[in-house]
Amino acid sequence: MTMSSLFTPRPIGFARTPFKETAHVPKGLGTKHEANGTLEILPEFEAGLKDIEGFSHLFVLWMFDRSEGFELLGAPPGEEIAHGVFATRSPFRPNPIALTVVELLKREGTLLHVHGVDMLDGTPILDIKPYLSSIPAESLRRGWLDEAEKRRAAKS
Amino acid sequence: MTMSSLFTPRPIGFARTPFKETAHVPKGLGTKHEANGTLEILPEFEAGLKDIEGFSHLFVLWMFDRSEGFELLGAPPGEEIAHGVFATRSPFRPNPIALTVVELLKREGTLLHVHGVDMLDGTPILDIKPYLSSIPAESLRRGWLDEAEKRRAAKS
Repeated sequence: MTMSSLFTPRPIGFARTPFKETAHVPKGLGTKHEANGTLEILPEFEAGLKDIEGFSHLFVLWMFDRSEGFELLGAPPGEEIAHGVFATRSPFRPNPIALTVVELLKREGTLLHVHGVDMLDGTPILDIKPYLSSIPAESLRRGWLDEAEKRRAAKS
Repeated sequence: MTMSSLFTPRPIGFARTPFKETAHVPKGLGTKHEANGTLEILPEFEAGLKDIEGFSHLFVLWMFDRSEGFELLGAPPGEEIAHGVFATRSPFRPNPIALTVVELLKREGTLLHVHGVDMLDGTPILDIKPYLSSIPAESLRRGWLDEAEKRRAAKS
């Protein structure tokens, strides 16, 4: 193992979503992801899905496969102030890994029908994990995002 | 890009935790992670931390760098029944990526002091993202985990 190559990522499947282009994915402050999609898991990984249907929500780790390079500072869509990449969901990350929480609607063999997708159609999926617990809403502080939403509300 | 090499993962930093060996990490049903640790971000990525201190909780993506290979089916610690790897937090995954939610206690330059670590000391960190929202507890179903906890409670 070298520092420049920790492991070799491989797709465990691909996402089917309504979004053919980046411009189609809802973005910006307060966006809710309400689209349905399908996670098509490769047949050789099907055994790894055993008992997944018992979970209402899943973490999906996927690859920003249509983003090149990374930017340590950037202003998210709809936000005028630049923030650090680790304080945003920017696709331009040192490791181009994305994380989405989806609701599992139904499993059919290697197909996971899910609600709440925000990735492009054809996106490689790296991992799926059960969503086990939540931070209580009253314990969450959301930094620049809360402030940006307040600024936007004050303008409208 | 080939199917077998989506991108080249690199560490953005390393975790300092009280756990020098796998056996030291609290595991099993109902485990709460109460240990404090430090995420030491590499100096070249420091700009990416701007404004992160505004968030109370962070997603930390890290690498299971001391696990070899993967198992599609396995019984988690304290559980007698095998489940699919994508329905567990097993370290033996096709892509050895782990996800932990931590509470951010304090930032000092490139050091993030956090609560709730469960990774080994020296673990490579791949990414950090702000924790923005939670699924309401009443909407969560936790599949085999709820059932396993009930079985254990019935035994004791």
